[in-house]
Formats: sequence, C-alpha cells, structure tokens
Amino acid sequence: MPNTHYFTPGPAALYPTYAQHLQEALHLQIGSISHRSRFFSEIYEQTYRALQQLLGFDDEVAVLFVGSATEVWERSIQNGVDSRSAHLVNGAFSEKFYQFAKLLQKDAIAHTVAEGKGFVAEEVLQTFQEAHKIKPIDFLAFTHNETATGVSTPSETIERIADAFPDAIRVVDMVSSAPYPHIDFRKVESAFFSVQKAFGMPAGLGVWLVNHKFLKKSEALAQKGAITGTYHRLSELWKHFEQFQTPATPPVLPIYLLGKIAEDLNQIGIEQVRKLTDQKAQLLYEAIGKSKSLEIAVAEPAHRSATVVVANTQKEASALIEQIKNDLNMEIGAGYGKAKNTQIRIANFPAVDFSATQQLADYLAQC
Amino acid sequence: MPNTHYFTPGPAALYPTYAQHLQEALHLQIGSISHRSRFFSEIYEQTYRALQQLLGFDDEVAVLFVGSATEVWERSIQNGVDSRSAHLVNGAFSEKFYQFAKLLQKDAIAHTVAEGKGFVAEEVLQTFQEAHKIKPIDFLAFTHNETATGVSTPSETIERIADAFPDAIRVVDMVSSAPYPHIDFRKVESAFFSVQKAFGMPAGLGVWLVNHKFLKKSEALAQKGAITGTYHRLSELWKHFEQFQTPATPPVLPIYLLGKIAEDLNQIGIEQVRKLTDQKAQLLYEAIGKSKSLEIAVAEPAHRSATVVVANTQKEASALIEQIKNDLNMEIGAGYGKAKNTQIRIANFPAVDFSATQQLADYLAQC
Repeated sequence: MPNTHYFTPGPAALYPTYAQHLQEALHLQIGSISHRSRFFSEIYEQTYRALQQLLGFDDEVAVLFVGSATEVWERSIQNGVDSRSAHLVNGAFSEKFYQFAKLLQKDAIAHTVAEGKGFVAEEVLQTFQEAHKIKPIDFLAFTHNETATGVSTPSETIERIADAFPDAIRVVDMVSSAPYPHIDFRKVESAFFSVQKAFGMPAGLGVWLVNHKFLKKSEALAQKGAITGTYHRLSELWKHFEQFQTPATPPVLPIYLLGKIAEDLNQIGIEQVRKLTDQKAQLLYEAIGKSKSLEIAVAEPAHRSATVVVANTQKEASALIEQIKNDLNMEIGAGYGKAKNTQIRIANFPAVDFSATQQLADYLAQC
Repeated sequence: MPNTHYFTPGPAALYPTYAQHLQEALHLQIGSISHRSRFFSEIYEQTYRALQQLLGFDDEVAVLFVGSATEVWERSIQNGVDSRSAHLVNGAFSEKFYQFAKLLQKDAIAHTVAEGKGFVAEEVLQTFQEAHKIKPIDFLAFTHNETATGVSTPSETIERIADAFPDAIRVVDMVSSAPYPHIDFRKVESAFFSVQKAFGMPAGLGVWLVNHKFLKKSEALAQKGAITGTYHRLSELWKHFEQFQTPATPPVLPIYLLGKIAEDLNQIGIEQVRKLTDQKAQLLYEAIGKSKSLEIAVAEPAHRSATVVVANTQKEASALIEQIKNDLNMEIGAGYGKAKNTQIRIANFPAVDFSATQQLADYLAQC
C-alpha cells in the first residue's frame, strides 16, 4: 500500500526529511551515546540554536526538554502560580490547562467563550482586571491555537492582554501552531509545544521555552515553601540547561532530530514557512466554503486557525473521513470530543506539501 | 568507522533487532497514527502481553507509560506516600529517589549503607521497624540494581523486607536490571524501568508496573485532599489503561518498539536471557579478578550486579576507557560521580552478545 497522507492534527505526517535524519542518527549511534557526553551537549546546543533562529528568541530564553507539552502545563503551573492563575478557555485543551491548575490546588479563574469562538481582548481584560482587584493574577495562560476547535488567538490579542499584566508569568501554549506564530519574548515569559504536530516527528518530546523572570518566580515560590517539582522543577532544568545538559536521561534521539528538522525549516526560512502555511490554509478554507455539505466551523475569519482547519459536516463525519481515505488515501481528523461526528479537522503543517493539499481541497470543494 | 560496541550502563547498545523493527514501524507509519485509534490500542495491548510474558505478572497488574523511570520516582511518591516513605540507599540513584520524597515534602527515612555495599535484611528491618513504631511506614522503596555502584539487592532480600510491611506500598526500581530480576507481584505493588538500559532502545519511555492495591492507595490519598498529580496521576493513567489508552499523547513509536523487543526476548525465553546474562557476567568478573590493575568493586559476591559490572582501577579510569576505545572500538562506562576516575562500569545487557563480551573480558584480564 502506498503511504497514506496524514492530515491529522497530531500525531501527524512526518516531516519529509525525518526518515533520512533518522538513518543518519542510527549511523552515528545517537541512541547509545551518553547524555553526560560532550557529544550530547553539542546536539542540545545545535537544537537550541536552530530553534532560536526559527522562533526568534534571544539568549535570555532557555529551551528545556520534557516529556510532552502536557507535562509543561503541569510544570508551568507548579513553578509559576503563587496567588492565582487566569486562563483563556475556548475548547477542550485550554480547558484542560485550566483544570490542571485546580488539580494542583491553585486558585484558578477562566474567561470562557463558546467552542468555535475566539477572544475579544476588551472582554477578557474586563473579566481578569475585575478579578485581579479582588486577588492578584500572577499567571496568565494563553492557548495560541485551540486544537479541539481550530480557533486561533492572534498574537496582537495575546500581547494586548499580556501587556495589562506586566508582573505576571504569561505563558503561550503553541502546541498545534509552532513555529507558525511569532511570539515576542519581551511580552511573555514562556511558550511551549510538542514535536508531533507541526514539526512532523513521532510523539515523545515536549519543548519548553522559558525566560529568566519565570526562573526567578519559581525560585521565589520554592523559597516560600511551595512544591515546584523534583527533577523537572524549573530551577533544576535551568541549571542543567546552562551546560546544555538535562537533570535526567532525556529523549536524546528526538532532541537530535528536532534540531535537524528545525534546520531544514530554517533553510526554507520562517517567513516562507508562514507564507506557505497561509497559502495552503486559504486553499482549504476556500474549498470548504465552496462545498455544499461542509461549512467553515469558525465564523470569524480573524480567529480561523492557519494550522488546524475545522469544518462542520452535514453527514456523519466518520463517513466522510472513510470516503477520503478510500478515494485519496488521505487521513483527516475527526472532530474533538462531542463534535467527533459533526466536524472534521484538517492539519495544515509544513510536512504536507502544496500538491497534496491542493488535491484534498479540490475533493472537499466537490463534497 | 565500524559500529562501536557500547558497554555503557545507559544509554546503552541498541538491541540487535531495533533498527529492523524501526524500519517496519516507519513502513506502517506508526509515527503518524492517532493515539486514540484502535491501531494504537492494539499496539499497547501487544506490548502489555509481551511484557507480561517476559516479566511474569498477572492481569491484576497494569503497565503504564510515562516519560522516564525518573518520572516514576516522582509519580510513585505522589501517589503512594501518606504517612512516611522508607528508602534503602546505597548509591547516587537510590539516594535521588529518597531526595525526591523530601522535595515532595513527604516524611522520608533512609537505611543507608556505604557505596559498594549491599543490604543485610535484618539490619534494614531493625532500622525500619524501629521507625515504624514511632510513625508508620506506608511506602517502601527498593532499588534492585544501584546503577552508580553495581550493587544488586537479591530478590530474596527485597521479599524478606517487603513481607514485614504487608500494608505498605512496596516499589522496586529495576531500571538497570529489568527484565533480569524476578519480581513477585504478590509481594510488591510496583516495579519500573526505562527502555534505554537492558531493553536496548534509545531513551524516551518509562514503564511503570502497578497493582490494584497501589491504585486504591492513590485514590484514598486523593480523597484525603493530597495532590496526586494531573495527567499522570495514577487513577488517570489506570482509567485509560483499561482501554489500552493513555491520558495524553504518549511516545507511540517507542511503545511499539518496546513490544517488539520484548517479543524477541520472549523468543529466546526469559530463563535463557537470565542464563546468558549470568554467563557473560561471570566472564567479566573472572577477567577483572585476573587483571593486575583492576579489582572487583563489590566485595560481597552475593551483592554483585549481573547487569552492571563495576571495577576499581589502579590508573586513571579515563585512560583505560580511552585505551579500550582505541584498541577494541568498545565504549565502557566511567565510574559515577566522585568515582568517575577510579572506577569503570560495564553494562551487561542482552543487546551485547557473548563474543563481544568475551573479547572485552580477554582484554581486561591482561590489563
């Protein structure tokens, strides 16, 4: 059977050069090298530099490796919340981040809008500033791209809200959009993602970007007697990062491969990656607009995700997914949770090329 | 350059069939499949069954996947300690497990013996039973194989101590020995390991075996208001395990590969795997005994690890390591921590065959 084209929102299609970098890694025996070796530190540093160029942050920002972006939800709350966390919630994943704060017994509040909707900065600010007067908000949780609904929060909206809380730890979940969004690290303290989305790798690595202010906050929390974690508490990760090391044996092979794929994306150039993403997204949204049985799920154009395109279906989503599999040998995603059979989700990551996207778009337009 | 033989205690040599299973996994596009698919559940179940046969546990025991064995230290303490944890400490790794309990602000005690020494059941029991009278011990932490020193704690010693605390949660770190030791799950509630040691895989997956009693303890702790974690709290992992699913996207590819390697080990048969391990260990220990410049580090034969063989060196360990690299194209491990330049550590995992081990042993005997 020829290879299936994966348009699923994670795990997703592997990046075209993934297999080749993997062969090279096996040749170099990277699966066996010591994580305390100079070789490993060089790999860590290379991956750091490649991500730095791609995502545009300065040397004040650390890149820390953990198991998954889900782990970052937990670690960032443990290390960042003292008084109260405030969450922008508009779908299952931003909701989970909020629930993690409660499970960790932090005081947490949410500004919630309906699934499929985006945020209006003024409304969010009203909720949070009101709450802030009663008890200070010291942690702000943004989800750049809500993977469950295909709603994106524009960087300008994030920055506008972040600017109103300059003393807070402001974190951006960019799980299903990195490296697409431009995050300004003068405005936020942290951002994070997993590699199985737009970086086109198998799951098994979380990437956590953190600045000094967040580190200092974590240290102050520990000083006050809070539990900030063990091997993956921020201070421990950071201390090792300074030597391009990790507190415990990390996923060495995925760290190497992430660096290689980031370098490949740098060869294309981040602006070109964004442009291609936009062009492919436009193809998909236009096709859904033309289709008689499909409807773009996110009504407001400014809130439509460029990386996870969601459509409402007239017939059962599962039937359409099966049909596309049979006719095109392409795998698209089902809706999330209760939308499982009424929506489809189409990932638009760099791993999938223009022609395959065009083929899918042409098909959808006829549906 | 021909492949280096890795005799390092983790990351270690890749299992001989690893690359072939990886190619097959790429062909099956396992890096892209959904972790919510039936295909993934089948992979999880296959890996569960293969480990069940290899390690000899019944259906009452769950196999849970996390990021690393280091993560299991943290999760097991969060989910298992109410009153007090008691740790058998004889090296850097068992010490870290103990320190994790303190970082999580649990009441923790240790029975500590010098590095290079093993435990005498009566002495441990005396320490712990004395402490237990003052404040009950409800969590017992064993390290089957102390990777830093090459000291093993025989199963009989573990069982003897475990039997004295039938109500406690008794956990066995078998990071650098699994699948070699036989763990009786009627005597302990949990055991765990990482895949980058004796399973011959790149790092990036922790395997946590847990029984119902541990689950119930975790639920009782949560009921009392303790923080037991978020996505990787025991009840959440277990709930998903019942459907062969995971709470968040797991490292799907490593879970598949672990199952394949466990199946390969089952083809050989666990008894034969143990026998070969013993034979190779004997070769190495005899060679070190014959050497003029080396000395077996663990004085008591019953406490010598079969899987991590440690020797004291007369000259600088780094020089010997370099020499072996140049002469044999073999990589052996340095001593751990302050023993870095006075000891060598040689992993004796299933991935390394008899003839390579013989070659190394012959060389060491002449040192």
